[in-house]
Amino acid sequence: MTARAQIGVTGLAVMGRNLARNFARHGYTVAVHNRSYAKTASLVADHGDDGDFVPSESMADFVASLARPRKVVIMVKAGAATDAVIAELIPLLEEGDIVIDAGNAHFPDTRRREAELKAHGLHFVGTGVSGGEEGALNGPSIMPGGSPESYEWLGPILEDISAKVDGVPCCTYVGPDGAGHFVKMVHNGIEYADMQLIAEAYDLLKQGLGASAQEIGEIFAEWNKGDLESFLIEITADVLAHVDAETGNAFVDVVLDRAEQKGTGRWTVQNALDLGVPITGIAEATFARALSGSVPQREAGRVLPAESGAWEISDRAAFIEDVRLALYASKVVAYSQGFDQIAAASAELGWNIDRGAMARIWRGGCIIRARFLNRITEAYERNPELSLLLADPYFTEQVGQGVGAWRRIVAQAALNGVPTPAFSSSLAYYDGVRAERLPANLIQAQRDFFGAHTYQRIDKDGVFHTEWTGDRTESDA
Amino acid sequence: MTARAQIGVTGLAVMGRNLARNFARHGYTVAVHNRSYAKTASLVADHGDDGDFVPSESMADFVASLARPRKVVIMVKAGAATDAVIAELIPLLEEGDIVIDAGNAHFPDTRRREAELKAHGLHFVGTGVSGGEEGALNGPSIMPGGSPESYEWLGPILEDISAKVDGVPCCTYVGPDGAGHFVKMVHNGIEYADMQLIAEAYDLLKQGLGASAQEIGEIFAEWNKGDLESFLIEITADVLAHVDAETGNAFVDVVLDRAEQKGTGRWTVQNALDLGVPITGIAEATFARALSGSVPQREAGRVLPAESGAWEISDRAAFIEDVRLALYASKVVAYSQGFDQIAAASAELGWNIDRGAMARIWRGGCIIRARFLNRITEAYERNPELSLLLADPYFTEQVGQGVGAWRRIVAQAALNGVPTPAFSSSLAYYDGVRAERLPANLIQAQRDFFGAHTYQRIDKDGVFHTEWTGDRTESDA
Repeated sequence: MTARAQIGVTGLAVMGRNLARNFARHGYTVAVHNRSYAKTASLVADHGDDGDFVPSESMADFVASLARPRKVVIMVKAGAATDAVIAELIPLLEEGDIVIDAGNAHFPDTRRREAELKAHGLHFVGTGVSGGEEGALNGPSIMPGGSPESYEWLGPILEDISAKVDGVPCCTYVGPDGAGHFVKMVHNGIEYADMQLIAEAYDLLKQGLGASAQEIGEIFAEWNKGDLESFLIEITADVLAHVDAETGNAFVDVVLDRAEQKGTGRWTVQNALDLGVPITGIAEATFARALSGSVPQREAGRVLPAESGAWEISDRAAFIEDVRLALYASKVVAYSQGFDQIAAASAELGWNIDRGAMARIWRGGCIIRARFLNRITEAYERNPELSLLLADPYFTEQVGQGVGAWRRIVAQAALNGVPTPAFSSSLAYYDGVRAERLPANLIQAQRDFFGAHTYQRIDKDGVFHTEWTGDRTESDA
Repeated sequence: MTARAQIGVTGLAVMGRNLARNFARHGYTVAVHNRSYAKTASLVADHGDDGDFVPSESMADFVASLARPRKVVIMVKAGAATDAVIAELIPLLEEGDIVIDAGNAHFPDTRRREAELKAHGLHFVGTGVSGGEEGALNGPSIMPGGSPESYEWLGPILEDISAKVDGVPCCTYVGPDGAGHFVKMVHNGIEYADMQLIAEAYDLLKQGLGASAQEIGEIFAEWNKGDLESFLIEITADVLAHVDAETGNAFVDVVLDRAEQKGTGRWTVQNALDLGVPITGIAEATFARALSGSVPQREAGRVLPAESGAWEISDRAAFIEDVRLALYASKVVAYSQGFDQIAAASAELGWNIDRGAMARIWRGGCIIRARFLNRITEAYERNPELSLLLADPYFTEQVGQGVGAWRRIVAQAALNGVPTPAFSSSLAYYDGVRAERLPANLIQAQRDFFGAHTYQRIDKDGVFHTEWTGDRTESDA
């Protein structure tokens, strides 16, 4: 066998198959392999026209068909399956070869694997790939971690097959070891927030205006022409316009209101708790999905009194514009929080992640692709050390214009009994981060009272404790 | 050495020392040991009057001084120190002896240790102890896990030294292995929510009324005479009334507004994410602490425009009553969510935890002790399978009376720029759990659109997928 393939893909379920086809369509000779050969055979039979595939039945032949340094993309189920494939590959590979995990691994697993493979003289690249089946085939957003050296070999190929926006690839080197999968995780967390915010906007329009799914779809289609332009707004308009063939009702009206999740939102929030970064929008979105699926609680909750007013909206256009502004502002908060999390992890783990570049590679291919991301890239280009995205002059002005509307919407939702956990949590974050003084002083005082946990003062340095059960004198702690 | 001590304590920092004194004062012969003997000697020298102490210099002598089955309370720093003491104890103990970890261990560690000690024929009791130094000495709330057999030996002693409310001990058997430390963790999570809610109420009264700390302290003192009566409200009144000796200003006004945390809030939220239980009040409280300490973000955030109204409150008494009702309602949500989490973990790990009994042992000794917990115990006595505490008739009525006030407060906070993440998140949860229909249908539709994640329908069983990029037909998935 000639070692002529430029890249290989093992694991040919729909994502792996589409990635392999994407490589082939870009002129690469692609080694393909799957545990059961049937999938390999059908890929070549069905899509041989896409380009030059080199199918192998065994992993050994697959590896042997690759030119050195070998580049092997693993696209199997995250977890034990990935470890099993890696274990099978290690004895077949040689120093300097590159193993790429393009699945949805949890970044600590990626860090562990990278260390293991490094000990074998191999490069391990954990890469986020976003865009679903469609993106894998036609151009995803790609977030590769690993050694800079591996990116020299691999980067040009990945950039080639990635989505392009204004001719710029939606792929760049993210950072060492787990950085790529970390950034993909935060991407997904932001996606949770974005989707929850859209769902709340939909609910407000539905309950506030009594609008039909069709009408709300038209509003979203209109919004997609402005600052909110994005894949998620676009498909929301599409979904809302869709009519269920069976009942003739709006499709969304026949869909059960229990949202499911696959875990990346949860990981994002758990990690943010470890880092001490408040990502309340993502947290509320994750918990909102959990609440929607809390069947016994929701059944019991039907008895709770609403005690809400009768919602009368006199100016429908003004209300719709308020919802739009509130959605935009809440969305900026979610991104601001997510980028804070990336900065915190990057500092803790020495990843040196360029946040502006992350916004740039999310502009196309991925689920959260949006016009708005150009503005984020620009913000970090203006100030790479920006400590709060909201405080970038562009966003301060843009959000500032909508703060009044945001306040009105959150207030009306509260008064009228519409649950808007992500809208209201985002506004609370905005008011919290801009507050001259938060009531955390009282919490510190309580903690010192019951647990002698000490406090700091505003007027001098040091750490202090008051003898609460004694004479209440203060001492240096 | 005669093996005459009925219980032993190793680790004589302030918590261990106070627990040892508490045992002694209740007539138990207490073996005492510390890594450095000085602390042991000073305990006996300073507090020998409390009762019968048996001091030992070595761990071997300490163990030898205990009557069988030996009961050894470990009160050292959670983590590696606990493991080190356990490793030292194991070879000295005999089958049937009981090791008690009374520190703040994370419950997965307790599960691991319990399994290890069981393999040695030893009982391991991970127990929550709440009440700080004061409680340890005079009667804490005690939450022991472990085998039922170990509780037969140990329970009477722990019940003896625990706080009593109406003559009932604030100690009961919680459940197997990690159950005790788990319940203590959720207790602490609820404590975070409770403290954040009090802090938000304080902030609202301060900003809405322009009231001084002194005046707000008087309001809390008044509230402590009613349904809100609790340790935390009581100490809040105390803290607010306290004047800083150095400046003559209200003490809270000189305390820095950066809240710290030791990790149990974070653990609680991380676990709730794993379980899929929405505990938004605790999550917002945990993130609010993180936000208060996010110094660069807060410094940058000072530029954000407020765009809030000028808050004019005409009826001060009505406003104060609204805040009180909103606080009460939000607090019930935090407890309802916390008890949901206990139920979910109990079901998953087969712990069979009696939630009413947990509320009962939290009535005294611990930080969240409150009159209100009697009502929770009654609710679970009425219905041990209660799926939503809010839906218990008593709470439905009590909270129902305050829902209008709650809505007004959350709306006013939003309009006037006061961050109330826990108040507003709790209201959003209330409106979410009572909603006939949530907008999660749209989220499921979006997920099916971009990721073929499928959805369910309201009108028939099954799991479905729509060919979004094709002819939009629906198929069984």
